[in-house]
Amino acid sequence: SKKKDFSFSNRGKTLEEEINETNTYYLNQQIAIIHKKPVPVQIVKVEYPSRSAAVIREAYFRTPSTTDFNGVWNGYYIDFEAKETESKTSFPLKNVHQHQVNHMKDVTSQKGIAFTIVKFTTLDRYFIVPFSVLYESWLQMENGGRKSIPISVFESKTMEIKPGYNPRIDYITAIKKMITNEQ
Amino acid sequence: SKKKDFSFSNRGKTLEEEINETNTYYLNQQIAIIHKKPVPVQIVKVEYPSRSAAVIREAYFRTPSTTDFNGVWNGYYIDFEAKETESKTSFPLKNVHQHQVNHMKDVTSQKGIAFTIVKFTTLDRYFIVPFSVLYESWLQMENGGRKSIPISVFESKTMEIKPGYNPRIDYITAIKKMITNEQ
Ligand SMILES: [Mg+2]
Ligand SMILES: [Mg+2]
Repeated sequence: SKKKDFSFSNRGKTLEEEINETNTYYLNQQIAIIHKKPVPVQIVKVEYPSRSAAVIREAYFRTPSTTDFNGVWNGYYIDFEAKETESKTSFPLKNVHQHQVNHMKDVTSQKGIAFTIVKFTTLDRYFIVPFSVLYESWLQMENGGRKSIPISVFESKTMEIKPGYNPRIDYITAIKKMITNEQ
Repeated sequence: SKKKDFSFSNRGKTLEEEINETNTYYLNQQIAIIHKKPVPVQIVKVEYPSRSAAVIREAYFRTPSTTDFNGVWNGYYIDFEAKETESKTSFPLKNVHQHQVNHMKDVTSQKGIAFTIVKFTTLDRYFIVPFSVLYESWLQMENGGRKSIPISVFESKTMEIKPGYNPRIDYITAIKKMITNEQ
Protein backbone atom coordinates (compact mmCIF):
# COMPACT_ATOMS: atom_id res chain seq x y z
CA SER A 1 0.00 0.00 0.00
CA LYS A 2 1.03 3.64 -0.40
CA LYS A 3 1.24 4.10 3.35
CA LYS A 4 3.54 1.14 3.77
CA ASP A 5 5.80 2.29 0.96
CA PHE A 6 6.11 5.68 2.59
CA SER A 7 6.74 4.31 6.06
CA PHE A 8 9.41 1.89 4.98
CA SER A 9 11.19 4.27 2.64
CA ASN A 10 14.45 5.94 3.49
CA ARG A 11 12.82 9.40 3.66
CA GLY A 12 16.23 11.02 3.25
CA LYS A 13 17.26 10.28 6.82
CA THR A 14 20.86 9.75 7.74
CA LEU A 15 21.91 6.45 9.26
CA GLU A 16 22.55 8.28 12.52
CA GLU A 17 18.97 9.56 12.59
CA GLU A 18 17.66 6.08 11.80
CA ILE A 19 19.69 4.62 14.68
CA ASN A 20 18.58 7.36 17.07
CA GLU A 21 14.96 6.51 16.17
CA THR A 22 15.70 2.85 16.77
CA ASN A 23 17.30 3.60 20.14
CA THR A 24 14.29 5.66 21.21
CA TYR A 25 12.08 2.68 20.34
CA TYR A 26 14.35 0.33 22.31
CA LEU A 27 14.28 2.72 25.28
CA ASN A 28 10.49 3.16 25.25
CA GLN A 29 9.99 -0.60 24.94
CA GLN A 30 12.74 -1.26 27.52
CA ILE A 31 14.50 -3.56 25.04
CA ALA A 32 17.91 -1.93 25.39
CA ILE A 33 19.42 1.28 26.77
CA ILE A 34 21.66 2.66 24.04
CA HIS A 35 22.57 6.30 23.46
CA LYS A 36 24.57 8.31 20.98
CA LYS A 37 27.56 9.94 22.58
CA PRO A 38 27.60 13.73 22.28
CA VAL A 39 30.22 15.27 20.01
CA PRO A 40 33.14 16.22 22.27
CA VAL A 41 33.86 19.94 22.29
CA GLN A 42 36.30 22.02 24.26
CA ILE A 43 34.44 25.02 25.61
CA VAL A 44 36.50 28.20 25.87
CA LYS A 45 34.01 31.05 26.32
CA VAL A 46 30.48 31.11 27.68
CA GLU A 47 28.17 34.11 27.95
CA TYR A 48 25.42 34.30 30.55
CA PRO A 49 22.84 36.77 29.25
CA SER A 50 20.34 37.84 31.89
CA ARG A 51 16.98 36.08 31.70
CA SER A 52 18.09 33.61 29.01
CA ALA A 53 20.11 30.48 28.55
CA ALA A 54 23.93 30.42 28.65
CA VAL A 55 25.46 30.78 25.18
CA ILE A 56 28.72 29.08 24.23
CA ARG A 57 30.62 31.71 22.18
CA GLU A 58 33.90 29.92 21.58
CA ALA A 59 34.44 26.19 21.45
CA TYR A 60 36.45 23.70 19.41
CA PHE A 61 35.81 20.18 18.18
CA ARG A 62 37.91 17.56 19.92
CA THR A 63 38.84 14.17 18.52
CA PRO A 64 36.59 11.50 20.05
CA SER A 65 38.36 8.61 21.73
CA THR A 66 35.50 6.13 21.32
CA THR A 67 32.76 5.12 18.91
CA ASP A 68 29.41 6.88 18.43
CA PHE A 69 27.01 4.62 20.31
CA ASN A 70 27.10 2.50 23.43
CA GLY A 71 24.90 1.04 26.12
CA VAL A 72 23.51 -2.13 27.59
CA TRP A 73 21.22 -4.89 26.40
CA ASN A 74 20.33 -7.89 28.54
CA GLY A 75 23.59 -7.77 30.47
CA TYR A 76 25.72 -7.28 27.36
CA TYR A 77 27.82 -4.19 26.78
CA ILE A 78 27.02 -2.91 23.27
CA ASP A 79 29.34 -0.54 21.39
CA PHE A 80 29.23 0.49 17.75
CA GLU A 81 29.96 2.96 15.00
CA ALA A 82 27.55 3.96 12.22
CA LYS A 83 29.02 4.44 8.76
CA GLU A 84 27.54 5.31 5.39
CA THR A 85 28.97 4.88 1.93
CA GLU A 86 27.61 5.84 -1.49
CA SER A 87 29.67 3.12 -3.14
CA LYS A 88 27.72 0.23 -4.68
CA THR A 89 30.59 -2.21 -4.63
CA SER A 90 32.67 -1.83 -1.46
CA PHE A 91 33.11 -0.01 1.85
CA PRO A 92 36.21 2.24 1.87
CA LEU A 93 38.23 1.74 5.05
CA LYS A 94 39.20 5.41 5.05
CA ASN A 95 35.77 5.91 6.68
CA VAL A 96 37.11 4.16 9.75
CA HIS A 97 39.52 5.91 12.11
CA GLN A 98 42.39 4.36 14.03
CA HIS A 99 40.95 5.44 17.40
CA GLN A 100 37.69 3.65 16.58
CA VAL A 101 39.53 0.43 15.74
CA ASN A 102 41.59 0.70 18.94
CA HIS A 103 38.47 1.32 21.00
CA MET A 104 36.52 -1.60 19.50
CA LYS A 105 39.52 -3.85 20.05
CA ASP A 106 39.68 -2.79 23.72
CA VAL A 107 35.94 -3.36 24.10
CA THR A 108 36.22 -6.84 22.60
CA SER A 109 39.07 -7.68 25.00
CA GLN A 110 36.75 -6.73 27.89
CA LYS A 111 34.07 -9.10 26.49
CA GLY A 112 31.88 -6.31 25.19
CA ILE A 113 30.08 -6.59 21.83
CA ALA A 114 31.63 -4.22 19.28
CA PHE A 115 30.46 -3.81 15.69
CA THR A 116 29.88 -1.33 12.89
CA ILE A 117 26.58 -0.68 11.16
CA VAL A 118 27.34 0.04 7.51
CA LYS A 119 24.72 1.53 5.22
CA PHE A 120 25.19 1.42 1.47
CA THR A 121 23.04 4.48 0.80
CA THR A 122 22.74 4.01 -2.97
CA LEU A 123 21.75 0.36 -2.58
CA ASP A 124 19.66 1.05 0.56
CA ARG A 125 21.28 -1.98 2.23
CA TYR A 126 22.35 -2.23 5.88
CA PHE A 127 24.88 -4.61 7.42
CA ILE A 128 26.03 -5.41 10.94
CA VAL A 129 29.77 -5.94 10.77
CA PRO A 130 31.25 -7.71 13.82
CA PHE A 131 34.52 -6.17 14.91
CA SER A 132 36.40 -9.37 14.04
CA VAL A 133 35.41 -8.98 10.36
CA LEU A 134 36.33 -5.30 10.23
CA TYR A 135 39.61 -5.96 12.01
CA GLU A 136 40.61 -8.70 9.59
CA SER A 137 40.24 -6.28 6.66
CA TRP A 138 41.94 -3.52 8.63
CA LEU A 139 45.01 -5.67 9.33
CA GLN A 140 45.13 -6.79 5.68
CA MET A 141 45.10 -3.12 4.63
CA GLU A 142 47.90 -2.33 7.07
CA ASN A 143 49.89 -5.15 5.46
CA GLY A 144 49.48 -3.65 2.00
CA GLY A 145 46.16 -5.28 1.13
CA ARG A 146 43.05 -3.62 -0.31
CA LYS A 147 41.73 -0.43 1.26
CA SER A 148 38.08 -1.39 1.13
CA ILE A 149 35.77 -4.27 2.02
CA PRO A 150 33.99 -5.67 -1.04
CA ILE A 151 30.25 -6.17 -0.81
CA SER A 152 30.80 -9.91 -1.28
CA VAL A 153 32.47 -9.97 2.16
CA PHE A 154 29.44 -8.19 3.62
CA GLU A 155 27.20 -10.82 2.05
CA SER A 156 29.24 -13.75 3.30
CA LYS A 157 30.64 -12.66 6.67
CA THR A 158 28.25 -10.07 8.12
CA MET A 159 24.52 -9.91 8.84
CA GLU A 160 22.20 -7.90 6.60
CA ILE A 161 19.34 -6.01 8.23
CA LYS A 162 16.19 -5.15 6.31
CA PRO A 163 14.99 -1.74 7.49
CA GLY A 164 11.54 -1.66 9.04
CA TYR A 165 9.11 0.91 10.34
CA ASN A 166 9.64 0.58 14.08
CA PRO A 167 12.27 -0.34 15.04
CA ARG A 168 13.86 1.14 11.93
CA ILE A 169 17.20 -0.74 12.10
CA ASP A 170 16.65 -3.68 14.42
CA TYR A 171 20.28 -4.36 15.23
CA ILE A 172 19.54 -5.92 18.63
CA THR A 173 17.63 -8.77 16.97
CA ALA A 174 20.59 -9.23 14.63
CA ILE A 175 23.04 -9.32 17.54
CA LYS A 176 20.82 -11.81 19.37
CA LYS A 177 20.95 -14.12 16.32
CA MET A 178 24.73 -13.76 16.07
CA ILE A 179 25.19 -14.69 19.73
CA THR A 180 22.86 -17.68 19.37
CA ASN A 181 24.73 -18.88 16.28
CA GLU A 182 28.05 -18.63 18.11
CA GLN A 183 26.88 -20.81 20.97
CA SER B 1 57.08 10.17 54.05
CA LYS B 2 56.61 13.61 52.55
CA LYS B 3 56.39 12.22 49.03
CA LYS B 4 53.64 9.79 49.95
CA ASP B 5 51.66 12.52 51.70
CA PHE B 6 51.81 14.64 48.59
CA SER B 7 50.89 11.83 46.23
CA PHE B 8 47.95 10.63 48.25
CA SER B 9 46.60 14.07 49.06
CA ASN B 10 43.61 15.56 47.37
CA ARG B 11 45.70 18.16 45.53
CA GLY B 12 42.58 20.21 44.89
CA LYS B 13 41.34 17.94 42.13
CA THR B 14 37.66 17.52 41.46
CA LEU B 15 36.15 14.07 41.74
CA GLU B 16 35.64 14.11 37.98
CA GLU B 17 39.35 14.70 37.43
CA GLU B 18 40.21 11.92 39.87
CA ILE B 19 37.91 9.53 38.03
CA ASN B 20 39.28 10.55 34.64
CA GLU B 21 42.79 9.78 35.96
CA THR B 22 41.56 6.43 37.23
CA ASN B 23 39.95 5.63 33.87
CA THR B 24 43.17 6.47 32.04
CA TYR B 25 45.00 4.05 34.33
CA TYR B 26 42.36 1.35 33.69
CA LEU B 27 42.64 1.93 29.94
CA ASN B 28 46.44 1.82 29.88
CA GLN B 29 46.48 -1.32 32.02
CA GLN B 30 43.56 -2.80 30.01
CA ILE B 31 41.62 -3.31 33.23
CA ALA B 32 38.43 -1.63 32.01
CA ILE B 33 37.30 0.65 29.18
CA ILE B 34 35.37 3.48 30.79
CA HIS B 35 34.97 7.00 29.47
CA LYS B 36 33.35 10.22 30.55
CA LYS B 37 30.53 11.23 28.24
CA PRO B 38 31.05 14.62 26.64
CA VAL B 39 28.74 17.44 27.74
CA PRO B 40 25.90 17.52 25.20
CA VAL B 41 25.70 20.82 23.32
CA GLN B 42 23.49 21.94 20.48
CA ILE B 43 25.72 23.60 17.91
CA VAL B 44 24.10 26.49 16.03
CA LYS B 45 26.92 28.38 14.32
CA VAL B 46 30.38 27.27 13.23
CA GLU B 47 33.06 29.39 11.60
CA TYR B 48 35.73 27.90 9.35
CA PRO B 49 38.66 30.32 9.35
CA SER B 50 41.19 29.60 6.63
CA ARG B 51 44.28 27.76 7.82
CA SER B 52 42.94 27.10 11.30
CA ALA B 53 40.51 24.88 13.17
CA ALA B 54 36.74 25.31 12.97
CA VAL B 55 35.38 27.53 15.74
CA ILE B 56 31.97 27.00 17.29
CA ARG B 57 30.53 30.52 17.71
CA GLU B 58 27.06 29.73 18.99
CA ALA B 59 26.00 26.66 20.93
CA TYR B 60 23.76 25.80 23.87
CA PHE B 61 23.96 23.30 26.70
CA ARG B 62 21.44 20.48 26.40
CA THR B 63 20.13 18.38 29.29
CA PRO B 64 21.92 15.03 29.34
CA SER B 65 19.72 11.93 29.27
CA THR B 66 22.23 9.64 30.94
CA THR B 67 24.89 9.59 33.63
CA ASP B 68 28.45 10.88 33.30
CA PHE B 69 30.48 7.70 32.86
CA ASN B 70 29.99 4.35 31.20
CA GLY B 71 31.87 1.49 29.66
CA VAL B 72 32.78 -2.16 29.99
CA TRP B 73 34.73 -4.25 32.47
CA ASN B 74 35.13 -7.99 32.14
CA GLY B 75 31.83 -8.40 30.27
CA TYR B 76 29.91 -6.16 32.67
CA TYR B 77 28.26 -2.95 31.57
CA ILE B 78 29.35 -0.21 34.00
CA ASP B 79 27.43 3.06 34.38
CA PHE B 80 27.81 5.71 37.05
CA GLU B 81 27.52 9.29 38.20
CA ALA B 82 30.12 11.21 40.20
CA LYS B 83 28.85 13.53 42.92
CA GLU B 84 30.56 15.74 45.46
CA THR B 85 29.20 17.28 48.63
CA GLU B 86 30.79 19.60 51.17
CA SER B 87 28.44 18.36 53.88
CA LYS B 88 30.03 16.38 56.71
CA THR B 89 26.86 14.64 57.77
CA SER B 90 24.76 13.68 54.75
CA PHE B 91 24.45 13.66 50.97
CA PRO B 92 21.68 15.99 49.73
CA LEU B 93 19.50 14.25 47.15
CA LYS B 94 19.03 17.54 45.29
CA ASN B 95 22.44 16.72 43.77
CA VAL B 96 20.77 13.87 41.89
CA HIS B 97 18.54 14.52 38.89
CA GLN B 98 15.41 12.63 37.92
CA HIS B 99 16.85 11.70 34.49
CA GLN B 100 19.88 10.15 36.21
CA VAL B 101 17.66 8.02 38.46
CA ASN B 102 15.55 6.95 35.47
CA HIS B 103 18.64 6.06 33.49
CA MET B 104 20.25 4.04 36.30
CA LYS B 105 16.95 2.22 36.83
CA ASP B 106 16.81 1.34 33.11
CA VAL B 107 20.42 0.17 33.20
CA THR B 108 19.74 -2.05 36.21
CA SER B 109 16.71 -3.58 34.43
CA GLN B 110 19.04 -4.49 31.55
CA LYS B 111 21.42 -6.18 34.02
CA GLY B 112 24.02 -3.44 33.85
CA ILE B 113 25.87 -2.26 36.95
CA ALA B 114 24.74 1.23 37.97
CA PHE B 115 26.08 3.21 40.90
CA THR B 116 27.10 6.64 42.14
CA ILE B 117 30.51 7.61 43.45
CA VAL B 118 29.97 10.14 46.23
CA LYS B 119 32.85 12.19 47.59
CA PHE B 120 32.50 14.00 50.88
CA THR B 121 35.04 16.67 50.03
CA THR B 122 35.41 18.11 53.54
CA LEU B 123 35.88 14.65 55.04
CA ASP B 124 37.94 13.42 52.05
CA ARG B 125 35.90 10.19 52.04
CA TYR B 126 34.66 8.34 48.95
CA PHE B 127 31.79 5.86 48.70
CA ILE B 128 30.43 3.59 45.99
CA VAL B 129 26.66 3.71 46.26
CA PRO B 130 24.86 0.87 44.45
CA PHE B 131 21.78 2.10 42.59
CA SER B 132 19.52 0.05 44.88
CA VAL B 133 20.69 2.05 47.92
CA LEU B 134 20.27 5.41 46.17
CA TYR B 135 16.87 4.40 44.84
CA GLU B 136 15.59 3.37 48.27
CA SER B 137 16.38 6.84 49.63
CA TRP B 138 15.00 8.46 46.49
CA LEU B 139 11.64 6.69 46.84
CA GLN B 140 11.51 7.54 50.57
CA MET B 141 12.05 11.21 49.66
CA GLU B 142 9.28 11.04 47.04
CA ASN B 143 7.01 9.70 49.76
CA GLY B 144 7.75 12.63 52.03
CA GLY B 145 10.84 11.23 53.73
CA ARG B 146 14.18 12.92 54.25
CA LYS B 147 15.88 14.72 51.37
CA SER B 148 19.38 13.48 52.10
CA ILE B 149 21.24 10.27 52.81
CA PRO B 150 22.93 10.35 56.23
CA ILE B 151 26.55 9.31 56.42
CA SER B 152 25.53 6.40 58.66
CA VAL B 153 23.74 4.87 55.65
CA PHE B 154 26.93 5.26 53.61
CA GLU B 155 28.85 3.50 56.35
CA SER B 156 26.40 0.62 56.65
CA LYS B 157 25.05 0.07 53.10
CA THR B 158 27.71 1.27 50.66
CA MET B 159 31.39 0.58 50.09
CA GLU B 160 34.04 3.08 51.12
CA ILE B 161 37.07 3.53 48.90
CA LYS B 162 40.36 4.79 50.24
CA PRO B 163 41.97 6.98 47.57
CA GLY B 164 45.34 5.82 46.30
CA TYR B 165 48.04 7.05 43.99
CA ASN B 166 47.36 5.02 40.89
CA PRO B 167 44.59 4.10 40.42
CA ARG B 168 43.32 7.11 42.34
CA ILE B 169 39.76 5.86 43.01
CA ASP B 170 39.83 2.11 42.45
CA TYR B 171 36.10 1.61 41.95
CA ILE B 172 36.51 -1.52 39.80
CA THR B 173 38.10 -3.39 42.70
CA ALA B 174 35.18 -2.24 44.88
CA ILE B 175 32.64 -3.44 42.29
CA LYS B 176 34.45 -6.76 42.01
CA LYS B 177 34.12 -7.22 45.79
CA MET B 178 30.44 -6.30 45.71
CA ILE B 179 29.73 -8.86 42.97
CA THR B 180 31.67 -11.54 44.84
CA ASN B 181 29.74 -10.79 48.04
CA GLU B 182 26.41 -11.07 46.22
CA GLN B 183 27.23 -14.51 44.82
MG1 LIG C 1 29.97 7.62 12.85
MG1 LIG D 1 28.15 14.33 37.73
